[in-house]
Amino acid sequence: MIYADNAATTRMSPGAVEAMTACMRERWGNPSSLYGFGQDAAEALGSARERVAACIGAQPREILFTSGGSEADNQALLSAAALGERRGKRHIISTAFEHHAVLHTLKKLEQKGFEVELLPVGPLGQVTADQVERAIREDTCLVSVMYANNEIGSVMPVAEIGQVCREKGVLFHTDAVQAAGHLPIDVKAQGIDLLSLSAHKFHGPKGVGALYARKGVALTGLIQGGGQEWGKRAGTENLPAIVGMAAALEESCAHMEENGRKTATLRNQLIAGLSKIPHSALNGDPVHRLPGNVNFCFEGVEGESLLLLLDDLGICASSGSACTSGSLEPSHVLLAIGRPHEVAHGSLRLTLGEDNTQQEVEEILKAVPQVVARLRDMSPLWEDKVEGKRAFLI
Amino acid sequence: MIYADNAATTRMSPGAVEAMTACMRERWGNPSSLYGFGQDAAEALGSARERVAACIGAQPREILFTSGGSEADNQALLSAAALGERRGKRHIISTAFEHHAVLHTLKKLEQKGFEVELLPVGPLGQVTADQVERAIREDTCLVSVMYANNEIGSVMPVAEIGQVCREKGVLFHTDAVQAAGHLPIDVKAQGIDLLSLSAHKFHGPKGVGALYARKGVALTGLIQGGGQEWGKRAGTENLPAIVGMAAALEESCAHMEENGRKTATLRNQLIAGLSKIPHSALNGDPVHRLPGNVNFCFEGVEGESLLLLLDDLGICASSGSACTSGSLEPSHVLLAIGRPHEVAHGSLRLTLGEDNTQQEVEEILKAVPQVVARLRDMSPLWEDKVEGKRAFLI
Repeated sequence: MIYADNAATTRMSPGAVEAMTACMRERWGNPSSLYGFGQDAAEALGSARERVAACIGAQPREILFTSGGSEADNQALLSAAALGERRGKRHIISTAFEHHAVLHTLKKLEQKGFEVELLPVGPLGQVTADQVERAIREDTCLVSVMYANNEIGSVMPVAEIGQVCREKGVLFHTDAVQAAGHLPIDVKAQGIDLLSLSAHKFHGPKGVGALYARKGVALTGLIQGGGQEWGKRAGTENLPAIVGMAAALEESCAHMEENGRKTATLRNQLIAGLSKIPHSALNGDPVHRLPGNVNFCFEGVEGESLLLLLDDLGICASSGSACTSGSLEPSHVLLAIGRPHEVAHGSLRLTLGEDNTQQEVEEILKAVPQVVARLRDMSPLWEDKVEGKRAFLI
Repeated sequence: MIYADNAATTRMSPGAVEAMTACMRERWGNPSSLYGFGQDAAEALGSARERVAACIGAQPREILFTSGGSEADNQALLSAAALGERRGKRHIISTAFEHHAVLHTLKKLEQKGFEVELLPVGPLGQVTADQVERAIREDTCLVSVMYANNEIGSVMPVAEIGQVCREKGVLFHTDAVQAAGHLPIDVKAQGIDLLSLSAHKFHGPKGVGALYARKGVALTGLIQGGGQEWGKRAGTENLPAIVGMAAALEESCAHMEENGRKTATLRNQLIAGLSKIPHSALNGDPVHRLPGNVNFCFEGVEGESLLLLLDDLGICASSGSACTSGSLEPSHVLLAIGRPHEVAHGSLRLTLGEDNTQQEVEEILKAVPQVVARLRDMSPLWEDKVEGKRAFLI
């Protein structure tokens, strides 16, 4: 099997599995319990919080553990909105190609009377600090721009946007689910007030994530109940997963540069090879791009069929976000960068990690052109389209 | 170490750890991915859903996986409230001694204009179906009564309450976090519309739970984002934990009777022994009681000191819910059953499981009277109180 869907989820690192299993076997006390066995768990929790905080330049007290990236995104936006509301500020700036955990939460806020402005992201899937600056109004309470897009891999100028937000006194949230462990994060230097991350995107366990909230940014609880996480996230702390996340994040950050270099080399080979397929186009920014992300549109090809044929050849890939793979809608991200509906249906996302090899890339480069050609052969409309110059992509 | 705090959390069963670890190592695909490796994960998810459903007499489609009991409670109440609101019904019946995951969510609903009526629970911590029936009004949209209380162990007449609710056409939610895996659950026979459970209370992993919602009861999403769990719970499914939960629940249900008998025997010995301590009183129903729950008030004793001295003797116990152990407030459960403030501060909860032994019970029975006596000796007011007949407990 060639696993090329690391944006959907990653193999857990053996170190993270080990840390988690040891915790499940030996340190299973409730961190809220007063006796030594519980306090031992509380100490492990505190240590994990310190380690996660250190990886992103935060203070431990600024890290809230959640059940994953979606919960962190939801809580970040609802918290910022609640703070804005108290000051009569109900304007929120975001982008058209955020993850649905952000977009759907914004939709909910719109229903509650907030005005949401989604910035266009241009053909490369980019937002500039200038765009953000121009959009900020007196009544803007929040800017939410993702660190890196989960489908097309574009990396946003987070530090510049952070600086603009800081100057304007507006809260800045970034969904860093795809970035954490893969790109450097320094919340202070980058002017980030709220940041979401998810462990299973950097070889940590599923079901756990973190929300960074700068000191002074009061969070609203999403899940009510016990007083865990300073009363901001009820529910017995998921210590084994939290410990696993800390181990995975430290490991990813320690090897970020070498992993990134290796992965980017493979990515560039893939992009160069796939670009040779006629009527294909790379989606996303060719330069400011996640080291592992490859995303192409192949005109005249239906994405799902492409994936199934690649699966037959042992290649795990996706057409976009796994979170929406059941949906028949074309990707909102590809539409946002201006791909027409029919082209957006024919996308292929290959996301590499440090586990992938040169040989795997070569196999993918053999498989994809064959599969694309086969699907085009099967499509009755394809020949006419190309001959009639109705093709959208060069 | 004598672990007697199984209501706070339980040691994971080796079978559950094994199932979870195998899943983390081998079946780490994203269940939403289309390729075989993802679909393999989706099958494991479906199978776990079937197994969890079977343990409580539900259909697989009626099981929603959550990050734990608190999230399930929150979502159950918010969903029922949303359904009620649509029909102009804004009256909710619950009890004064629910878990804070229920009480705090109800508080939020009150702020949104719902009328919440908390039934008194009497000196034994009991609610009758009659009480519920009398409280139901034309505009009642929900009855939420816990299956068994987490502090004092009282078991509610869930089936009778379910029948009343069914007759009256009112939704019935039960927080079964303490009951699942320990007491029989049959959602159909018991007339339950919504039920919450949490894996780490029955030797499963932390960070995972389930919400049963009867077919036809539409859930409101608490976490917005991807289309997982039929669009009702966004976020990549936590498959390893879900698989661990299924294994643990099946195991607990398979041995429920023998474990319950064994645990109840030890519990009864503990209750009999601790009852001999002067000015002590059992909290909760002596008959309708969780098999592992022992909860006493010792007048003239401060709960936290009691726990710390027991911890010195290697005994892990609590004064009430671990979720509120940082709080200085007396237990709302003990206040609800009528214990005066000063007595409610001196409570001890010992919750046994099938791991506990006869010898451990004997050690506890040696330790607690000594520790209580020592603390009373240290209290300057205690002697006066007793002599002046100001003691509250016999």
